Amino acid sequence: MVVVSLLTDYGLADGFVGALHSVLRRAAPAVPIVDLTHGVARQDVRAGSQALLRAAPYLAPGIVVAIVDPGVGSLRRGVAVQAAGDPGQGGASVASKPAAVFVGPDNGLLPPAVDALGGPSACVELEDRGYWLPAPGPTFAGRDIFAPAAARLAGGAQLSELGPPIAPETLVRLPPPVVRHREDGALEAEVTWVDGFGNVQLAAGPRDLAGGEQSLEPANRGERTRFETVGTHRTSTAAQVRVFADLAPGELGLLIDSYGHLALVLNGSSAADYLKTQEGEILTLRAPT
Amino acid sequence: MVVVSLLTDYGLADGFVGALHSVLRRAAPAVPIVDLTHGVARQDVRAGSQALLRAAPYLAPGIVVAIVDPGVGSLRRGVAVQAAGDPGQGGASVASKPAAVFVGPDNGLLPPAVDALGGPSACVELEDRGYWLPAPGPTFAGRDIFAPAAARLAGGAQLSELGPPIAPETLVRLPPPVVRHREDGALEAEVTWVDGFGNVQLAAGPRDLAGGEQSLEPANRGERTRFETVGTHRTSTAAQVRVFADLAPGELGLLIDSYGHLALVLNGSSAADYLKTQEGEILTLRAPT
Amino acid sequence: MVVVSLLTDYGLADGFVGALHSVLRRAAPAVPIVDLTHGVARQDVRAGSQALLRAAPYLAPGIVVAIVDPGVGSLRRGVAVQAAGDPGQGGASVASKPAAVFVGPDNGLLPPAVDALGGPSACVELEDRGYWLPAPGPTFAGRDIFAPAAARLAGGAQLSELGPPIAPETLVRLPPPVVRHREDGALEAEVTWVDGFGNVQLAAGPRDLAGGEQSLEPANRGERTRFETVGTHRTSTAAQVRVFADLAPGELGLLIDSYGHLALVLNGSSAADYLKTQEGEILTLRAPT
Repeated sequence: MVVVSLLTDYGLADGFVGALHSVLRRAAPAVPIVDLTHGVARQDVRAGSQALLRAAPYLAPGIVVAIVDPGVGSLRRGVAVQAAGDPGQGGASVASKPAAVFVGPDNGLLPPAVDALGGPSACVELEDRGYWLPAPGPTFAGRDIFAPAAARLAGGAQLSELGPPIAPETLVRLPPPVVRHREDGALEAEVTWVDGFGNVQLAAGPRDLAGGEQSLEPANRGERTRFETVGTHRTSTAAQVRVFADLAPGELGLLIDSYGHLALVLNGSSAADYLKTQEGEILTLRAPT
Repeated sequence: MVVVSLLTDYGLADGFVGALHSVLRRAAPAVPIVDLTHGVARQDVRAGSQALLRAAPYLAPGIVVAIVDPGVGSLRRGVAVQAAGDPGQGGASVASKPAAVFVGPDNGLLPPAVDALGGPSACVELEDRGYWLPAPGPTFAGRDIFAPAAARLAGGAQLSELGPPIAPETLVRLPPPVVRHREDGALEAEVTWVDGFGNVQLAAGPRDLAGGEQSLEPANRGERTRFETVGTHRTSTAAQVRVFADLAPGELGLLIDSYGHLALVLNGSSAADYLKTQEGEILTLRAPT
Repeated sequence: MVVVSLLTDYGLADGFVGALHSVLRRAAPAVPIVDLTHGVARQDVRAGSQALLRAAPYLAPGIVVAIVDPGVGSLRRGVAVQAAGDPGQGGASVASKPAAVFVGPDNGLLPPAVDALGGPSACVELEDRGYWLPAPGPTFAGRDIFAPAAARLAGGAQLSELGPPIAPETLVRLPPPVVRHREDGALEAEVTWVDGFGNVQLAAGPRDLAGGEQSLEPANRGERTRFETVGTHRTSTAAQVRVFADLAPGELGLLIDSYGHLALVLNGSSAADYLKTQEGEILTLRAPT
């Protein structure tokens, strides 16, 4: 059974998400719908692409509608992209990658997730072939183009029925988040996510640390490794830990988060507030010598 | 298949919406449910009625439970109203209007949406005929009356099983949003909606402008039409555009939004903040002479 | 048909809830899911336990995943607890209590709701028997342990397939909210909930008042009973009423709320703001003498 998953920057207050659901349910009343999130920072395509990437390994097989779309109604293309699924030994956490078709704007939002699921095996541009909803104005492509396209796919349509094929290599791509290994052994990594608990996810993983993954093995509190953490607004040290509960109150920790990334955390409060950091900042980590 | 759509001012933090879903799923575990929005400004019946009106043309056929209900438990009636559906050539964007039964308080919330779907063809007052949930206090009609009524309808009950018929013309109605054509050719229009992106929807449509719809045709940036925009706190000019991307940074635009209304917008930031306006204010637009 | 109900402190912005839904829908695409709320105050186990307790009498029969879990990944146990259902004449508002299996951390979150549904009839500790998702880090038990356990149960697995039995009396329990009857006849009661409308729910019910439930009977406005209300920051008097609309603007009311608790309310504004109170404060009520 096909599932339709949704990710947008619409927020939940305005009825935009309700309109997507209504359009989907008019065509396919019983289709399962998963709201991945509608809380992407408004018009932040990069943040949306990272949120979609985090969701990718866990997606229910089917169709993903992702919309963060400052260029709505302009010349940017609307696209549907087939991800091959099952890329073998990836870095993510579940064994079999789902096959999925991603529907959304061609502005860089989709490719990181598509790549995580095996890369694009086919792409089409969404052209009106009778499935767009007539609309008084062109500013709500989610309701008028993307949801109807997803409804068609959920009803069994082929990708090719949605529009003409385009070359996968023409998809717009954003530069990846920064991970830099400095000559002095320090690691520079972009903050890819500050979650609602204030955890600070970095673009880097444990293998990027000098000393490698082993340096993050659980250790006794007395002798555990501490990493110097340098940001724009605060320099601190972070103790390697496995979970939040390993930390004393107010103690900054560095752990491998549930997405396989390094993350700076506090126990019961916000590491982002403590570090005065935010998404997009480059933080520097230096392992003990 | 019947779909149950929900619109309330409950917010999502408190479990009120979860209670509606639970009550519906106890009676009809597999019924598709659409959350149109639960972010209507609290106890703002007028804002709720406008949000429901915007959702109406896209509704999945079935039952709509709408609740913004400052008078809960008092003498205001609870009602179920059948909308005829398919009113022919309306101003909205989808060809066939769904038939729907609206369930909620009789305080003005429902009629604009009912009218958009062909007007009320039958109404009943929700009286306890065994389907209300027993409750320790009368302040949660959504859980105890409206959701059980919707569950009955979803299960195939007739409108007449929910209570005695009432005359459609006795339904409480709110005054419509203001649209005034001044003798000097200026257009006064109420702000009906400020969405989460800060777009400012007006009660007026393009036909209300002096010069009519043609005055909003796409134009070259150099020579496009500009409308004087006068609010309480700021006077500005708005360039006619088709989409956000037609605007330079910081440039105020006037476009036809996805609901067929005139809207004042900025590209990538909040027109409401820029204009220091809010829902309910009357703005004046003056076309170039 | 089994329904899966969810309650967490995840918020809706981050995709955590979407991950739960995805994992559930991978295993059971069509299972009905109810989001009770994801807006529990972050890491506030006590607030979560109260929210779950309020939801309990209305739950759709099936499985409840509840997660407020500051100790994730530490030695705290993950558990699944069968509630017997149908406890007979409880204080709650619906006649038949649903049978349910509660899945979540063993930190006090689950027992109040379990008790409301007849008490724990069987418990197991969630041990990995092949159903946990492999994860790069142990900080997202909802996605990696609790949702997969719920998916197994939704697919027909027995409780005993999830792990070894544990004694129900070993479940961690929080102290109940405070209700104290003072010698001078005053009632001290903890604020168990401030909802989004600013209504202030107390741990006490009408039977806890001196004079008993009768003292809250509807009365004419001119002669109705007033209760002295003493908090840390404000002393006031509250008029006994049945619904919000019985109150004049700015008048504090005391009513029996839709959960059978005493609640302090205003009509159209926030009683919590007026009283400058919050969850956890002890308020004192004194009936007229």
